[in-house]
Amino acid sequence: MKMPENNAALPDIGQIHDAAARIAPHARITPVLRSAVLDALTGAELHFKCENLQRGGAFKFRGACNAVWALSEAQAAHGVVTHSSGNHGNALALAAATRGISAHVVIPEGAVQAKVAAIQRAGAILHRCAPTQAAREQAATEVQQRSGAVLVHPYADTQVMAGQGTVALELLRQAEGLDSLITPIGGGGLASGTAIVAHAHDPALQLFGAEPQGADDAAQSLAQDARLDSMTPDTLCDGLRALIGASNFEALRQHRVTVITVSDRETIAAMQLLWSELKMVVEVSSATVLAALLKKPAQFAGRRVGVVLTGGNVDLQALPW
Amino acid sequence: MKMPENNAALPDIGQIHDAAARIAPHARITPVLRSAVLDALTGAELHFKCENLQRGGAFKFRGACNAVWALSEAQAAHGVVTHSSGNHGNALALAAATRGISAHVVIPEGAVQAKVAAIQRAGAILHRCAPTQAAREQAATEVQQRSGAVLVHPYADTQVMAGQGTVALELLRQAEGLDSLITPIGGGGLASGTAIVAHAHDPALQLFGAEPQGADDAAQSLAQDARLDSMTPDTLCDGLRALIGASNFEALRQHRVTVITVSDRETIAAMQLLWSELKMVVEVSSATVLAALLKKPAQFAGRRVGVVLTGGNVDLQALPW
Repeated sequence: MKMPENNAALPDIGQIHDAAARIAPHARITPVLRSAVLDALTGAELHFKCENLQRGGAFKFRGACNAVWALSEAQAAHGVVTHSSGNHGNALALAAATRGISAHVVIPEGAVQAKVAAIQRAGAILHRCAPTQAAREQAATEVQQRSGAVLVHPYADTQVMAGQGTVALELLRQAEGLDSLITPIGGGGLASGTAIVAHAHDPALQLFGAEPQGADDAAQSLAQDARLDSMTPDTLCDGLRALIGASNFEALRQHRVTVITVSDRETIAAMQLLWSELKMVVEVSSATVLAALLKKPAQFAGRRVGVVLTGGNVDLQALPW
Repeated sequence: MKMPENNAALPDIGQIHDAAARIAPHARITPVLRSAVLDALTGAELHFKCENLQRGGAFKFRGACNAVWALSEAQAAHGVVTHSSGNHGNALALAAATRGISAHVVIPEGAVQAKVAAIQRAGAILHRCAPTQAAREQAATEVQQRSGAVLVHPYADTQVMAGQGTVALELLRQAEGLDSLITPIGGGGLASGTAIVAHAHDPALQLFGAEPQGADDAAQSLAQDARLDSMTPDTLCDGLRALIGASNFEALRQHRVTVITVSDRETIAAMQLLWSELKMVVEVSSATVLAALLKKPAQFAGRRVGVVLTGGNVDLQALPW
């Protein structure tokens, strides 16, 4: 579990089935919803997997829960640690609580107060640091060394990717005959787990990712066939600012994932459609997928598309429209 | 179907089962969601029936659909008519479309433009009138006389009440062992259908209604044991401004429904909780139920409560906070 972040092995389908069994007592089976209006707007048959209804309000609970319960007793005894001001921090805190172990979460200054409060409410031990990637990693390493806690990386972690893959396992069982799947792409934990499940299920399934134009490192990396390892993200999609992980990128390449980039303006319009038509509170990052469907209708026309809505943690006092 | 509005017979449980069979090809089985945070806040075990996910975004589709399909061929040939600027008008338009008959909807001037557009999109024939109860009823009568369309009243109609009762039929099957049910109260179509189903299922079930303080005619009517037939509503809850119908009131009385009144401020706070914790877009009227649970926790402590979330049609550009 302590391997360097970018060399996490991709899980195989067996590990993803193991993950499903491991998290079953703790995670929710989230519903799949339809909308005649959104079908008509996109010209496709859309099946929305509502991970905004997952524990903690995001799919992240699956990966964190799998990582926590995959630890040996000896490893678990010292707790877990991560650096995240967002959904993964909260998910790890909730997951640790299900096993009764401690969770340390390193939080950069300036993080959204509502998310910090949720992490605290979930029982995590908070550690503040400067708002840079280097400071975050250093603070997490210090906590690790001091406490013996195991690092659970948000996406470049085999068990985390396996846990995120369980979203697609469920979706393919709930909505039969899908021929395409689309997820947002941030660090790539969900996209890589999804790709592995999809092609174990049906090698002909078409895979898509949606990425904000202001954080399009996965799209650029695929275009130049080499992973971009530096970028200053500029997007409202706070859940998608991470750089794609090395093994996550490898999965996108192997599984021929097509990345569609969308502007924040397109994403905000799609977010309003999801709220008003699907009646789902989704966060802005989650709306990139509908924005992509609306932007490239020819890719999806007449197809049965599984669409992962990743999370619903928003600040109702600061909506982006 | 053309009986005067206040003398509609209450449906019996057999008619509600018939309604369930009649609407099954058209209506959605909506999910029941839980929230650990809302359970903790109220001290009860809450099972939220998400009728905001029903076709048209509200439970109203059930009653309208049942009324439309209960018509004989001869009756149906001339279409249906109602006066409603809100969810019932939209529901009737959608329901008429499932049978391929015309729907006339009388719309008072000043109705919310987004709702009018939805009714139009659903294929209804619109008729404008002045924004008074008398003008609405007169316009509907004129349409009836001119077209031969059958009036489908929003709540004082046997088949509409039977259709609304199917919400409780489903909920009691989806969430076993409930000992209490709570719905909002406007005209009382949902509350009366719910009461009939609940006590056919278990005579010991406790029944509650939530009503805005600014439209508390049901609460006042029960207190004085006589139906109030005049009131000027003053509440943001646009779905709950109707006066309780005569037979609807009779059902509340017979079934000993306890009405809890809540201020709009309490309702708006509850609405934000439903959005942020349950990730459900619900309209302000729907949030009265959670406001009532939070206001009278002693009534619900430790109980398994079925909570009907009635609709999710909101104007995202004009949120009430």
